[in-house]
Amino acid sequence: MRYAYLGPEGTFTEAALRTLQPEATEAARIPYAGVDAVFAAIRRGDVDGGTVPLENSVEGGVTATIAELINGEPLLIAAEAALPVEFTLFAREGAAVADVKRIATHPHALAQCRGWLARHLPDAEVFTVSSTAAAAQSVAEPGSPYDAAICARIAGERNGLYALAEGVGDRDDGATRFIHLMRPQPLPEPTGSDRTSLVAFLSDDHPGALVELLNQFAVRGVNLTRLESRPTGDGLGRYCFCLDADGHVAEPAVGEALMGLRRLCKEVRFLGSYPRADADTELTPFMPSRGTTSADFYEAQEWLTRIRAGEVG
Amino acid sequence: MRYAYLGPEGTFTEAALRTLQPEATEAARIPYAGVDAVFAAIRRGDVDGGTVPLENSVEGGVTATIAELINGEPLLIAAEAALPVEFTLFAREGAAVADVKRIATHPHALAQCRGWLARHLPDAEVFTVSSTAAAAQSVAEPGSPYDAAICARIAGERNGLYALAEGVGDRDDGATRFIHLMRPQPLPEPTGSDRTSLVAFLSDDHPGALVELLNQFAVRGVNLTRLESRPTGDGLGRYCFCLDADGHVAEPAVGEALMGLRRLCKEVRFLGSYPRADADTELTPFMPSRGTTSADFYEAQEWLTRIRAGEVG
Amino acid sequence: MRYAYLGPEGTFTEAALRTLQPEATEAARIPYAGVDAVFAAIRRGDVDGGTVPLENSVEGGVTATIAELINGEPLLIAAEAALPVEFTLFAREGAAVADVKRIATHPHALAQCRGWLARHLPDAEVFTVSSTAAAAQSVAEPGSPYDAAICARIAGERNGLYALAEGVGDRDDGATRFIHLMRPQPLPEPTGSDRTSLVAFLSDDHPGALVELLNQFAVRGVNLTRLESRPTGDGLGRYCFCLDADGHVAEPAVGEALMGLRRLCKEVRFLGSYPRADADTELTPFMPSRGTTSADFYEAQEWLTRIRAGEVG
Amino acid sequence: MRYAYLGPEGTFTEAALRTLQPEATEAARIPYAGVDAVFAAIRRGDVDGGTVPLENSVEGGVTATIAELINGEPLLIAAEAALPVEFTLFAREGAAVADVKRIATHPHALAQCRGWLARHLPDAEVFTVSSTAAAAQSVAEPGSPYDAAICARIAGERNGLYALAEGVGDRDDGATRFIHLMRPQPLPEPTGSDRTSLVAFLSDDHPGALVELLNQFAVRGVNLTRLESRPTGDGLGRYCFCLDADGHVAEPAVGEALMGLRRLCKEVRFLGSYPRADADTELTPFMPSRGTTSADFYEAQEWLTRIRAGEVG
Repeated sequence: MRYAYLGPEGTFTEAALRTLQPEATEAARIPYAGVDAVFAAIRRGDVDGGTVPLENSVEGGVTATIAELINGEPLLIAAEAALPVEFTLFAREGAAVADVKRIATHPHALAQCRGWLARHLPDAEVFTVSSTAAAAQSVAEPGSPYDAAICARIAGERNGLYALAEGVGDRDDGATRFIHLMRPQPLPEPTGSDRTSLVAFLSDDHPGALVELLNQFAVRGVNLTRLESRPTGDGLGRYCFCLDADGHVAEPAVGEALMGLRRLCKEVRFLGSYPRADADTELTPFMPSRGTTSADFYEAQEWLTRIRAGEVG
Repeated sequence: MRYAYLGPEGTFTEAALRTLQPEATEAARIPYAGVDAVFAAIRRGDVDGGTVPLENSVEGGVTATIAELINGEPLLIAAEAALPVEFTLFAREGAAVADVKRIATHPHALAQCRGWLARHLPDAEVFTVSSTAAAAQSVAEPGSPYDAAICARIAGERNGLYALAEGVGDRDDGATRFIHLMRPQPLPEPTGSDRTSLVAFLSDDHPGALVELLNQFAVRGVNLTRLESRPTGDGLGRYCFCLDADGHVAEPAVGEALMGLRRLCKEVRFLGSYPRADADTELTPFMPSRGTTSADFYEAQEWLTRIRAGEVG
Repeated sequence: MRYAYLGPEGTFTEAALRTLQPEATEAARIPYAGVDAVFAAIRRGDVDGGTVPLENSVEGGVTATIAELINGEPLLIAAEAALPVEFTLFAREGAAVADVKRIATHPHALAQCRGWLARHLPDAEVFTVSSTAAAAQSVAEPGSPYDAAICARIAGERNGLYALAEGVGDRDDGATRFIHLMRPQPLPEPTGSDRTSLVAFLSDDHPGALVELLNQFAVRGVNLTRLESRPTGDGLGRYCFCLDADGHVAEPAVGEALMGLRRLCKEVRFLGSYPRADADTELTPFMPSRGTTSADFYEAQEWLTRIRAGEVG
Repeated sequence: MRYAYLGPEGTFTEAALRTLQPEATEAARIPYAGVDAVFAAIRRGDVDGGTVPLENSVEGGVTATIAELINGEPLLIAAEAALPVEFTLFAREGAAVADVKRIATHPHALAQCRGWLARHLPDAEVFTVSSTAAAAQSVAEPGSPYDAAICARIAGERNGLYALAEGVGDRDDGATRFIHLMRPQPLPEPTGSDRTSLVAFLSDDHPGALVELLNQFAVRGVNLTRLESRPTGDGLGRYCFCLDADGHVAEPAVGEALMGLRRLCKEVRFLGSYPRADADTELTPFMPSRGTTSADFYEAQEWLTRIRAGEVG
């Protein structure tokens, strides 16, 4: 089995792939230069799956990933991983923080480290490059125009750099959510703590159209954990909605809600049902609404069968 | 086959039963003294079915019928009929309108004829008795304390009375809806223009509890044609809700909405799916909401089956 | 001040009026023969107010009262009273239960005493007359065709009858709600435990029209305590809705909800805001939804004023 | 008056500022290196206002702008502009398309020009820099490592470059929405075609919490034109919602909806009411729901005043 990921080697995405496919050999992990290249490799069948970032707790959704999920040949999300994002300042051997005048990093990383930089290196110039791993690679090159890189630990170590400062992000609770994509295939079995992802394109734009859509979930007690409007590309003011819901499409509440969306929307793109990465975390336990457990749904189904047969309910 | 109805002979209910079971012989129609007696006869198996009034376009719901539908051993509504209600003033042979001093009728009939009486017989005394048919019977008796009866044509004629004035009701568009009840048995097949009746008991009484209930219909595009709160009998402020919805429980939209109620409510009593009596009348044609035809539901079900199998939707 | 009530003397309604206007002299209470006569007397100005029954915990809404509230010149509900309904079997002096062969009562009372009669007087004939007070009056007359009356204590005693059996109703928690009506005038001040009554006529009949109406209450956290559909009189299937809501129209949540109805409906008839009769009873205390107290509404109004002025909220 | 904008000179943002403040002198337009710097300059009072991009019809929301709107000292949106985004390939004098081996541009521009590049310059290397204007500047420098820049016309011309190819974007309907920010101050008057922006932080995360929020708009007939969830920064799965609604906060429907949000949410940040930039475009004319015009709201307010005074409505 071969797996693509958003490279180069040493990105946070590679770390996520190692978490998601721990038994894969080194050779089975193939870096690609962009999110679109990862999607293309999976779609062509060059690889069996691939890992990309989906959203960051500071920056929000990753535009390139969401654009690929919405457009092109559909792929399924087979798994997810949520990794804390820890930024480290790496330099060549022998350098000290005081020597750092020119720093390379990715724009997203820069956004998350501005506070630390303002306090510790207020006079340093920061240059943004295509990835934090590329920043580390560049710093390691002889004659590099940069003195230091802000990147993941894995990238600094791979390039033989030395950590000048750890935890240079402004928040220590930052995390990124990664998804593992595959071509359409049988879904993972429900685990009792799953997530279902989809994209919904509204049929029209009357007041309350979005309420009607969300109501399809609320009326069945299905909790939405993410709702993100994205431009359809057809001009300003035209959006589709990327949704994550608690539960597995094999469960009746989610299945019925999705049928409701299918009836109501111009198009619904199903993106998969897969185990939640945060299943065992400290998130507020969620109290189901009255009558919305799977057992409630099955009991109601049996009752309906009885009354349709003319029996006393 | 033997059929009970709310008697005595000559009531509007007998006329409704003749409409609902036109092929039944005279002997097969058995009058009972009260709505509760009709229900009891069906429940005991003394008869195969029975007809009672459910609601009147002027008076509203018939309390006794609704109470029996809500309580006791469940029966199913197998058919309905809507009859215009035409009141006639009947007297003994030889009498004229000017001779009428004492009139007998049923309180509901009185309520619907007050205008005519005020204009034509302002000085007559009106006495209310247990049914319009009983009024006719009483007038026909020798030595009757009454000079005339307001009743249905069938009752006046049966008792050998003479019509003094026809159409003495204040509105000429009054109508009564009758239902034909049977013990639980296979439902009539869907006809494309059916009605489904049920009683819902809410689980609790928070603001919006009733909205949640009605939302189960709205979100599936099911039209409610009647909603009537009735006391549960457990004290003031405790109600259950009698509902009529367009459609047949065998259809997916109605079936799904009923499952939603079952999950949400303390109790749901299914009262039957049966052809609408007003199917061919001039009522505003009803425009279904987007995505709520049975075809939409079946298409969505097939799509769900595909995506659950991991196929591209 | 002179007050009308649904007579004759001795009805439960007279008892309710005594509760509602305890300081009125005997002469100030005038019985009328029907609910419609009470309404007419108030509308003409013959009396300053009047009391009629609105609903019963067993029978439901009183049709005649609701019809008068919906139609004709509008009156306001100025107060309400909820009285337990206790039925007593009264006879002439010297009679025993075993002597009772023919009983007079009102149909509603009969409906609530069937169980007791079946157990204690299974062979007695029951005759229904226009009120329980009329039954008592009739029994008291020399040569009465009846041996006993089921009526209120006040009616039996007024007519010099003797109680043969008390509490002959099948439920000991039966209660009737009475309302006191006046011509339009300044509303009673809010007490913190009030009720608001109104009638709403929907503009059309699409699926969800009633949900939209109820949503106007739910979205502002206003609790509905009664919802009763009544025929508009324009044919079967045409209803208006009689609503009781918690709160006073002077309060912002109720005021805003009523404006919502006014915008949405073909017509809204406001029937008054007045103190709840059950304010101090054991009904489940009601937990307001988030952000729906009057304080929340006033705070939001002040915030709106600030942001409309361009200040930081 | 001095105005900040996202520089350097020649960005699409400068073009937007020229549209929004056409009478400002050249000296009054001051480029800042980042969106955060524009916000900071306004907050400090260094400038009277400033223009930044908010969203792009292909890329979606501009993360940096949204982050600044959500956090820090509140600013108000005073105006908006929507500009078509037209990309041009610029090079130094004498160059031909066939000579282009190394191209500089901004990542967002690259994303929108991939198709053209694949067709016309499949072998060219593309380098991403901090803005399209910076790309043009760099190409203009002697000894530049780049042969060409993809940028706005204004940027190419300012830097003395020559257009090799116009309209190199993959879609010709791409547009970017820019907003002009000011410190809190009196709002622009309603024009009849306005937009209101805000950020809502939900109080909790039960199923249906977002429906409740959106329902505050739907129930008053207020149309939402944008809904975008953004991470609050407090970890994955914690979002706030950036909303644009049709209408001005001075109008009753919008005012009432915002009060509803204020009551329901943990926090609501009002971002301003201002004229819609697309007021005269071809967007589907929007049909207001029943009873939701300002006239409807004012009529209902007058009715409420009457019934609160005890008058017949």
